[in-house]
Amino acid sequence: MTDLPTRITIHEEGPREGFQIEPGPISTADKVRFCEALAETGLHDVQCVSFVDARRVPGMADAVEVAQAIRQRPDVHYSAIALNLRGYERAITTPLHITGHMQMSTSNTFSIRNTNKDNAETLIEQRRQLEFFRAHGIPVESAIVMTCFGCNFEGAIAPETVRDCVGSLLALAEEFDIKLDRVRLADTVGWGSPAGIQRVVGMVRDKWPDLKLALHLHDTRGTGIANALMGLQMGIDSFDSSCAGLGGCPFAGHAGAAGNICTEDLVFMCEEMGIETGINLDALIECARMAEDIVGHPLPGKIMHGGSLTKYRQAGALA
Amino acid sequence: MTDLPTRITIHEEGPREGFQIEPGPISTADKVRFCEALAETGLHDVQCVSFVDARRVPGMADAVEVAQAIRQRPDVHYSAIALNLRGYERAITTPLHITGHMQMSTSNTFSIRNTNKDNAETLIEQRRQLEFFRAHGIPVESAIVMTCFGCNFEGAIAPETVRDCVGSLLALAEEFDIKLDRVRLADTVGWGSPAGIQRVVGMVRDKWPDLKLALHLHDTRGTGIANALMGLQMGIDSFDSSCAGLGGCPFAGHAGAAGNICTEDLVFMCEEMGIETGINLDALIECARMAEDIVGHPLPGKIMHGGSLTKYRQAGALA
Repeated sequence: MTDLPTRITIHEEGPREGFQIEPGPISTADKVRFCEALAETGLHDVQCVSFVDARRVPGMADAVEVAQAIRQRPDVHYSAIALNLRGYERAITTPLHITGHMQMSTSNTFSIRNTNKDNAETLIEQRRQLEFFRAHGIPVESAIVMTCFGCNFEGAIAPETVRDCVGSLLALAEEFDIKLDRVRLADTVGWGSPAGIQRVVGMVRDKWPDLKLALHLHDTRGTGIANALMGLQMGIDSFDSSCAGLGGCPFAGHAGAAGNICTEDLVFMCEEMGIETGINLDALIECARMAEDIVGHPLPGKIMHGGSLTKYRQAGALA
Repeated sequence: MTDLPTRITIHEEGPREGFQIEPGPISTADKVRFCEALAETGLHDVQCVSFVDARRVPGMADAVEVAQAIRQRPDVHYSAIALNLRGYERAITTPLHITGHMQMSTSNTFSIRNTNKDNAETLIEQRRQLEFFRAHGIPVESAIVMTCFGCNFEGAIAPETVRDCVGSLLALAEEFDIKLDRVRLADTVGWGSPAGIQRVVGMVRDKWPDLKLALHLHDTRGTGIANALMGLQMGIDSFDSSCAGLGGCPFAGHAGAAGNICTEDLVFMCEEMGIETGINLDALIECARMAEDIVGHPLPGKIMHGGSLTKYRQAGALA
């Protein structure tokens, strides 16, 4: 485990992932209070909402109201995503920390099904967006490659394809004089295994040894946290995750729609391994329980149900 | 990942773990059909029941009936556990594959709370049991050390303590001329992390390089499958696990009672890593869905909800 980082950063996506997919109506006040509680745990990046078509994603109809109501701490980025220029136009009217995203899928078929554009058209749209970001002074910090470990339409994805997508995004960034902080590799549809992580991260790193990488992992098939462990062993020090495992709903029969790996389970694992997260685990577990209370049904996070070791360690120390 | 085994064996504990803890009555016929279905997947060891006091564990009141009704395949061990001589006396009247177990906890307090005997008294009881096994021709194949990674009463457990427990069990086995096939290291109350696995397995292996080890892991805090990955990386080639993650009930508020790691999620991870399990994953997923149907509430396994990659890979091959 020689490549383990000493410290990781976590991008919390629970509010956005959860409020987007939950079937029940969730009040604006609950969304706000959850985002505010997360920001008290030591997390420095909380993705609060997405600016998307409310007809397609009714749970995000109040995105602007949520964004405006959150009382912000100065040391936390309250972020958001948008998928197109219309979304960005709404996003930049809010007090959220809006950054431009660059993205590409390894799978042409996935791109077409997901956005109605193939990869060539996606690059054209990406240029339009980059011009918009430049015109509005929106910083571009990271790029994401989707379906890095497999695709439900195209099957297995060769690591070389991921490498080529990273290359395309880096070239596009250079064309716009953008210095990317990081490239995020996403297991969008949950095909990842530790072996896949090792192959893909290894191939990208061989080509660009100094490029900082992040992993965006979904726990569709139960290996999410093991995939994160393999990422850590390869020196990955940035992860996207969701408090309480919000975002999936395996218990409502939404097969395949499992959420990101669970933030507090990841924090527990890292802290037990001596890897700092800067996060107060017990406070984060309270947030997870709040999330379960808000959505009104069990969520997949484990340590929120099993409990942290804090009180047992104290008891042990006293015994 | 150089120490990865090429093949692992899995001891399926779902029926015993699940039928023991589930609150609702489960019919004898359902128990039998689940055990029979598991035996069709390629699993070679299915732990069907425990012979325990029915007043304390009502779900096991029909253990003898279940044991007698199962139609056995010749290539599968249908096993069981018993905690004391009275249990073994019932067990050996059934057609199940009964083996003698040796066990010890690293934590004296845990032993007292769990069995009303401290570790010294446990050794005395163990000798009585070993004499009973010898008198009845019951083979002793493995020994288990419980609470290897931490204890809710005594807190953190030093790896040296685990090593000393293994030593005590090996000495006792030698005293009875028993050649143990394997020593199982159990994370009984879910304290394990990959770092803990590495430390404990490393220490035991340093002392007995040729001793075969197995891991018995509970997914109380979300790191179960990552702990299994670390075990694999250290060459562990035998695991206890539960189909569908049966045994815990995090969704009914039984905090801390999470089940074993999920067999089909473990099989998925291993097969994706090129480690043979000999198990038909899709057949096992069908068993997990049967388990959910039998218990009547969602179970924590993931791939049973997300689905295997088989059909997507086929689609990809055709695309």
